[in-house]
Amino acid sequence: MVLEPLQASDLETLVTGVNLLWVLVVTFLIFFMHAGFAMLEAGQVRSKNVANQLTKNLLTWSVGVTVFFVIGAGFSSLVGGSGFVPAFQTSDPNSWVSWLFGAVFAMTAATIVSGAVAGRAKLRAYITYTFLLAAVIYPFVTGITWAGAYISFGGEAFHDFAGGMIVHGMGGIAGLTAAYVLGPRMGRYNDDGSANVIPGHSLTFAVLGTLILAFGWYGFNVGTAASVFALSESGELTLGAFSYVGRVAMTTTIAMACGAIGAAAVAWAKTGKVDTLYVANGLLAGLVGITAIPDTTTWWGAFLVGGLAGAQLPIVFGFVEKRLKIDDVCAVFPVHGSAGVLGTLMFPFVATPGTVGSVANAFIAQLIGVVAIAGWTIVATGAVWAVLKAVGQARVTPEHEQEGLDVSEHGVETYPEFGSGDSVVADGGIMNEEVRTDGGSKDD
Amino acid sequence: MVLEPLQASDLETLVTGVNLLWVLVVTFLIFFMHAGFAMLEAGQVRSKNVANQLTKNLLTWSVGVTVFFVIGAGFSSLVGGSGFVPAFQTSDPNSWVSWLFGAVFAMTAATIVSGAVAGRAKLRAYITYTFLLAAVIYPFVTGITWAGAYISFGGEAFHDFAGGMIVHGMGGIAGLTAAYVLGPRMGRYNDDGSANVIPGHSLTFAVLGTLILAFGWYGFNVGTAASVFALSESGELTLGAFSYVGRVAMTTTIAMACGAIGAAAVAWAKTGKVDTLYVANGLLAGLVGITAIPDTTTWWGAFLVGGLAGAQLPIVFGFVEKRLKIDDVCAVFPVHGSAGVLGTLMFPFVATPGTVGSVANAFIAQLIGVVAIAGWTIVATGAVWAVLKAVGQARVTPEHEQEGLDVSEHGVETYPEFGSGDSVVADGGIMNEEVRTDGGSKDD
Amino acid sequence: MVLEPLQASDLETLVTGVNLLWVLVVTFLIFFMHAGFAMLEAGQVRSKNVANQLTKNLLTWSVGVTVFFVIGAGFSSLVGGSGFVPAFQTSDPNSWVSWLFGAVFAMTAATIVSGAVAGRAKLRAYITYTFLLAAVIYPFVTGITWAGAYISFGGEAFHDFAGGMIVHGMGGIAGLTAAYVLGPRMGRYNDDGSANVIPGHSLTFAVLGTLILAFGWYGFNVGTAASVFALSESGELTLGAFSYVGRVAMTTTIAMACGAIGAAAVAWAKTGKVDTLYVANGLLAGLVGITAIPDTTTWWGAFLVGGLAGAQLPIVFGFVEKRLKIDDVCAVFPVHGSAGVLGTLMFPFVATPGTVGSVANAFIAQLIGVVAIAGWTIVATGAVWAVLKAVGQARVTPEHEQEGLDVSEHGVETYPEFGSGDSVVADGGIMNEEVRTDGGSKDD
Repeated sequence: MVLEPLQASDLETLVTGVNLLWVLVVTFLIFFMHAGFAMLEAGQVRSKNVANQLTKNLLTWSVGVTVFFVIGAGFSSLVGGSGFVPAFQTSDPNSWVSWLFGAVFAMTAATIVSGAVAGRAKLRAYITYTFLLAAVIYPFVTGITWAGAYISFGGEAFHDFAGGMIVHGMGGIAGLTAAYVLGPRMGRYNDDGSANVIPGHSLTFAVLGTLILAFGWYGFNVGTAASVFALSESGELTLGAFSYVGRVAMTTTIAMACGAIGAAAVAWAKTGKVDTLYVANGLLAGLVGITAIPDTTTWWGAFLVGGLAGAQLPIVFGFVEKRLKIDDVCAVFPVHGSAGVLGTLMFPFVATPGTVGSVANAFIAQLIGVVAIAGWTIVATGAVWAVLKAVGQARVTPEHEQEGLDVSEHGVETYPEFGSGDSVVADGGIMNEEVRTDGGSKDD
Repeated sequence: MVLEPLQASDLETLVTGVNLLWVLVVTFLIFFMHAGFAMLEAGQVRSKNVANQLTKNLLTWSVGVTVFFVIGAGFSSLVGGSGFVPAFQTSDPNSWVSWLFGAVFAMTAATIVSGAVAGRAKLRAYITYTFLLAAVIYPFVTGITWAGAYISFGGEAFHDFAGGMIVHGMGGIAGLTAAYVLGPRMGRYNDDGSANVIPGHSLTFAVLGTLILAFGWYGFNVGTAASVFALSESGELTLGAFSYVGRVAMTTTIAMACGAIGAAAVAWAKTGKVDTLYVANGLLAGLVGITAIPDTTTWWGAFLVGGLAGAQLPIVFGFVEKRLKIDDVCAVFPVHGSAGVLGTLMFPFVATPGTVGSVANAFIAQLIGVVAIAGWTIVATGAVWAVLKAVGQARVTPEHEQEGLDVSEHGVETYPEFGSGDSVVADGGIMNEEVRTDGGSKDD
Repeated sequence: MVLEPLQASDLETLVTGVNLLWVLVVTFLIFFMHAGFAMLEAGQVRSKNVANQLTKNLLTWSVGVTVFFVIGAGFSSLVGGSGFVPAFQTSDPNSWVSWLFGAVFAMTAATIVSGAVAGRAKLRAYITYTFLLAAVIYPFVTGITWAGAYISFGGEAFHDFAGGMIVHGMGGIAGLTAAYVLGPRMGRYNDDGSANVIPGHSLTFAVLGTLILAFGWYGFNVGTAASVFALSESGELTLGAFSYVGRVAMTTTIAMACGAIGAAAVAWAKTGKVDTLYVANGLLAGLVGITAIPDTTTWWGAFLVGGLAGAQLPIVFGFVEKRLKIDDVCAVFPVHGSAGVLGTLMFPFVATPGTVGSVANAFIAQLIGVVAIAGWTIVATGAVWAVLKAVGQARVTPEHEQEGLDVSEHGVETYPEFGSGDSVVADGGIMNEEVRTDGGSKDD
């Protein structure tokens, strides 16, 4: 059988099918980042608060994605100038693939916050905030950027390819704001203002989470090159975003690697030792750093952005801890916030030739975007948590915090068979209260 | 070079290649669910039985997939009316992709059972049952449904898109049956019939497993939309199952989310606390609930099915525990069994307009399918475990159960460096026997 | 709109886009194997060395991939006869997809070594070796094989489809060599030469790592069938490596399963118990065994190769431990080394009819390849570690080894809240030093 010449509809089908396939696969990968966040955050909290952190992660996704379905996606389109089109109103089932692709980005921003407020936020407060983030706060950010494309300066548009600022910067800044309003965990600071370290209960889970996140991040960044194919106006089949997908994959890889190396180097220079958690979080900071610009950055730019994003991590973490005295438990600001801002602002300086017309104007456009997103996020997040605090619903009682949120909020013990040594606080000081009755391990 | 018009063979190649690619990717995702089951189940058992649970999971896959290769796939085709065509008999290597796609569904059904019989089933008994499940029990179920399509009523065919009943319902019911025949773990019930809670050793592993399963489930459900492209009779390229793949992705997502919310809400209403394990298992129950019908369910139906599947979890779990007095260790019946039945039966009530001709007939067809699969599963599973029990091979000795299956069946200790506090039983009562010599943790 | 006949450029675009999509997806899967190695190795070391193992894994990837970008890929092309073409020199961004695809294989070889030298290698020594492996040692191996295709005998070319010898065999042999030069951990052998078992701290993490690796291995093996489509010389669209991709998927699956069964059977025959770690490592050995030959092996050959690769594991492990007295902590030689050699050498005996002309010549070609790769790996690896040892930089001090590398090299404790019972050594003997102050767990 010799066929008739291929029809336009055939080519459209081809483009639709392959693009759908790709977007679905990367969406699954991005969804899997929730397992990464759950493990990363669980590993960085004390064993008495692990179940609380895990529950928050499960409910962030569950509450957030339904709210984003009913309200959030529509609010984003409203802000973006296309009217309120909620996700449930559609005549084409396959438009839900685009919705889900947007939803996994939204839920990434949401789940970052839980790492900052760990160990003392009430579950109902956190869920309330997640509801508002998914309905309004995050959709406003995408509404003025990806949907509305309102931000530009001197002919240069604000550029954030995969959400280095829109998703990670927003999440990291929201986390810092919420942690500031909530105040530090009991025992985190002494009366003289000096800080105590409260180590997480499992570096293994933290590193597992890091590597799951890096895996999913390939979906996040490379997957944002969402169109494998496109049809030219004359009906010719062309590569869509896949014409530069190799650059996205390379810069993402190099920046991730250099983030880990940068953080390791700074940690080593400061202490003579290579702190595992800095290496892990540095790898993530490298990923955050490149996320706004993987499509346009040169190979040497990827080294630079990743290395700086990693190197700033120990420094910014120390600044937040010791100067701002904000108890950002899982270091979400240095990992997602400052690294996201850094990469977004470096855009014109590391871009391939021809990407921007005016470096100065492009930088200013980036700066406007960063300031707008940061300002909105701080105001909206601060207002929500301040109201929750004012009505006494932001934070658990000191007794519950001391006991651990697993028992007080969830009625469970994460590790009922293993000993937990825990530092609890009375009257502003720290004392060791051994809640264990006896026990230990067999000789091995 | 201008080419000749595209030939029919070109289009066939195109359809074959892209469809193979997609099926391979989702097959890998479904395979990865074994890691999810391993973690979910390991987290829900005591530390003295963890290695046993892990070994069962590894051997379920290993024994099951080889048996399914040599016997099971052929038995399914035999029951389905196509004769005994074992997987090794093929002239086209790429038919093995279809076989593997079927195999990962089969192994999902198999591995569910291990969660129900945890803590007391002999390894050899479990392996024997897995052999028979992969060879006969599960293939019979697919033979009468997906392969043979024998079940219908009044012109309405039994509908189970991705195995809500065929895979999960079957596995959950098999687990409940096996757990009933085996009897409860020592110490699970008191002399007066009241139940004791035996908490699992790690909620972190349980939640990790949950999220790995949810990730793989996208392959399970969305991947069952296995044909990206199809060729129409006139040789035109069309979308195959990808014409509705967005609906599958959306309903799967919404039902999962609502499952977690539904279980959380019921748990909160009953106890005032949000039990982490209920949220996790509720998320999975939401997924199970939608698995039979993600292709046809409306968006509001996904909310309903997911919410109900989650909400029934704490209730059915309590019923199994307190009324049936069956020790279903990892709650596989409420998660996979009753949730699978629920979603399967709800098919005609939540389907998009035009999906079914007669709601009543469609419901009856679904009911016939549920009863047939449940009946066969109970009889076959019950018979196998009853025989094993009769010859004294179903259950480990009380001494071995008390000691833990890790030591008695595998000669290993899962956590040789960590203390394990364990409740052991003597004379039907519970007393605390501290097997530890001394120990503890350093102050932190 | 009726289109013009499809142009050659359209078909080229089609082939390019779909092939890129597939290679990207499998590359992500192979990258995820780092999470598998991290968990597998972390689970097999004592809790005092877990953070060290995790950090090594993070830095293997980070340092290795940047070195491979700047030097290694270019050195491979140089050895292969195409001149020194480093990865950063390219005019086509999508060539970076090929580079990244090569890089994830390279990093797999690199990370295997860390499992062999666990518990006593200095971090700086390990990083130095990783640098040289990524820059020179591994690229030389790919240069003489995949890039240069220099090895053949009597018209039969050396066949290693996905790196059974090139990646895994090389990594396993490098690990054994490094472990030999370093010497065993303190307390691993008694004065009379008998061996002590030093159990890993968590079988759960080890099995999780195993299943993550198996998941990623589908990318590794099936993904090496990298061309979904090809264009024939006459411009016809054909399946590329996807014409036999089903065989690759099937043999990989069967060999993995039979590896687990083979190791379980031998362990059971020797001890009457089914050691979990043997089952897990046997599954991996089955995968390694088939990795050189999944494209050409018959279904019965997959059973045979997998079964033998699994069965040799306990035997070779015992040989290395008791005869060679090499402390290969994570059994990387029996899993990756000997299993890789085995599968590579079995190539002509299990291949489908017509694959090889002369079985004898094909076997000799395989043998030459194995000897060349093994010889180079032993010499290069041995030289590097011998130099490091000569300058006193290979191994941590006995005090640091006793204390654990987490504290001495990284300044962290992996599990600050959990007790760790540890066997430490003084004067060549073992005594139990309880570093714990008190502790235990609550009754459950």
